[in-house]
Formats: sequence, C-alpha cells, structure tokens
Amino acid sequence: MRKLLMFNSTSLDGYFTDANGDMSFAHNRAQDPEWDAFVSGNASGGGTLLFGRKTYELMASFWPTPAAAQMMPKVAEGMNRLQKLVFSRTLKQVSWSNTTLLKGDLVAEVQRLKAGSGEGIVILGSGSIVSQLAPHGLIDEFQVVVVPVVLGRGRTMFEGIARQLPLQLTRSRSFKNGNVLLCYEPMS
Amino acid sequence: MRKLLMFNSTSLDGYFTDANGDMSFAHNRAQDPEWDAFVSGNASGGGTLLFGRKTYELMASFWPTPAAAQMMPKVAEGMNRLQKLVFSRTLKQVSWSNTTLLKGDLVAEVQRLKAGSGEGIVILGSGSIVSQLAPHGLIDEFQVVVVPVVLGRGRTMFEGIARQLPLQLTRSRSFKNGNVLLCYEPMS
Repeated sequence: MRKLLMFNSTSLDGYFTDANGDMSFAHNRAQDPEWDAFVSGNASGGGTLLFGRKTYELMASFWPTPAAAQMMPKVAEGMNRLQKLVFSRTLKQVSWSNTTLLKGDLVAEVQRLKAGSGEGIVILGSGSIVSQLAPHGLIDEFQVVVVPVVLGRGRTMFEGIARQLPLQLTRSRSFKNGNVLLCYEPMS
Repeated sequence: MRKLLMFNSTSLDGYFTDANGDMSFAHNRAQDPEWDAFVSGNASGGGTLLFGRKTYELMASFWPTPAAAQMMPKVAEGMNRLQKLVFSRTLKQVSWSNTTLLKGDLVAEVQRLKAGSGEGIVILGSGSIVSQLAPHGLIDEFQVVVVPVVLGRGRTMFEGIARQLPLQLTRSRSFKNGNVLLCYEPMS
C-alpha cells in the first residue's frame, strides 16, 4: 500500500489561497533557516504529487519559471523533477515536466494507485480532491502549516466536503518564523 | 490601558461554529484533565466578556441552563458570574446575568473601554466584532484553539474583515485531546 498524504499551508482562518487564488502569503515570512531546511527536505524526497486542475494550473504557471528557480531553487528543482498526477475533466493536455493527466473516476483511480507499490503520494492544495477522498478514508495523513496571517477570504482546503471529519493529532512543531505544523490522522 | 484579547475554538478549517451556528464540536473530545484545568482556569479569572449579538444569543441560551451547570460546572459558573458586554443594534434588552447592552459606535466605545482602568476584556466568538476591531489594532492578542475536526462549513472568526492581518506567533501548546492553542499578537 502506498501512503497518501495531504500537505497544505493555510492562513489562521483556514484558507490555502487568498481571494485571487494566490498562495504567496505562505512565503512572505521573515527568513528562518530551520523552516527553509524543513521545506527543502520535503521537496528533496521522492514520491508523487497529486493535484486537481486549479492547483495544478497555479503550480504549473510558477515552478517551471526562472523566477521560481531564483527565489526557491531547491523547492523548484523538486517540484519540476517529481512525478505529478493531475485529475481534470476539462484539461486537454499538460505541459509541466513529468505530469500525467488522469480522467477516470477519482476515488477508484486513487484506490488503484494506493494498492500498487511505490513511494508515497502527496496532495498539495486541491481542496475539491481532498474533499472527495477524505470521506472515503483514503487520506492517511493531513499535514497543515498554519501561517500567522488572517486572509479574510479565500479557498478552503476542504472545499465542499460532505460530512464532518474527526481527526487525531499526531504531532505539532512551531517554527521561529511563526509557522506551526500540525499533523493529523483520520480518527479510526 | 485594559488589554483586549480574542479567544476562539475553531475547526482545522477555520470555523468557530458549524453551519447551524453550533459550537458543540469544540466540546466533543475525549477526557483530558490538563485541558479541563486550562478551560476551568480561563473561566475562573476576572475580566469582562465582549460579544456581538449572534454569539451572545448562542451563549445566553446555554450557559444559564441546568444542562450547562451539569456538563461544565466551573465554566458555567464563570460565564454566568463575569461581567458581559453585548454590542447590538437590534436587541431591545438582555436577560443574562451581569450583561450590559451597548448601542454606540463599536470602535469608539471599545477605545473608551480600553482607555479606562480594570481587568482585561475577552471577545468570544463574535466574528463580525473581531473583524471590525482588528484592522484598528484594537485587539492585543488572538488566542485560537485548533480543534482536531474538519467541519466543511460554518462561520469564520474573522467574518468580513476588510484587509489581511499579519500576526506574530507568541506561543503554542498542544493538549493530549488533540487541541492546539496558538497565541498571536498583531504584527507591529
């Protein structure tokens, strides 16, 4: 079984993008070497990334650019190198390196992926994907970085989830830049 | 100067009530003596509570009841005993013990209250009050308990805030029941 993990940075009021679909609030913090090491460590690993269309388009428009390579070289390298899966009914093709477009039934496809062998799968952003998979118990871990800012409006990472989801806190870690990592598993 | 503090329990997706205006998700956790001591300690102190109408009506319909006295005796005693202020343009009268109804300009009234002497003032719930006061720098501390549950829908504690609010993390504390307390000050 491959493990499926959700990783999101959110504002204190629970949004992973602002009202304009922008995620840059998560990178506006003061320098913090310990945080930088944590982020680079995440990006340098293996595994597969899983996206919905909206988050895919946001990421594909940033990480392959020279600006991304200059601002966050290690993360950009990882994002471009890793295997990526994007679920979309409307996209015709994908141009970002190492990306596969999937059109099948989301739940069935993810069950098939998880049953195979290989490294872990990580969902970034993609609130509607999270909301469809979580009620089926298909997400094994939720990692949320609470960024010390209030946005007021934006997209929630559990967009349209059909029922409440009780969780179990497994660990937490606070960083000097004010970010707090909270890790949860589904309540069994 | 009196200190003004916001205290809220929220779901991981940032809601302090569920879609029905219910806050009971915050009390559904497993027993945790350390958490109980923390909550009782908060309720046993002095100070003044500040509400908007919606949160006032929710609290006034619960804390004076025999059910509240049985379920959470120390907290109920504190809630009923403490001085309470409620801002509302529509309420005609208030029946909860030790409550004063205020009809003046919210910002000017809170500036006047803070300039006086006395113990601290605590806002519970009351997203629209928080959103009106925070951009004026009138809230000195934000205390948020992240409860390990996803609600999917509900009211945000920064309802309708007009601009983004950068914060500074001052401390964090995790409890065995999975609640995590996050404390922030406004970024100066």
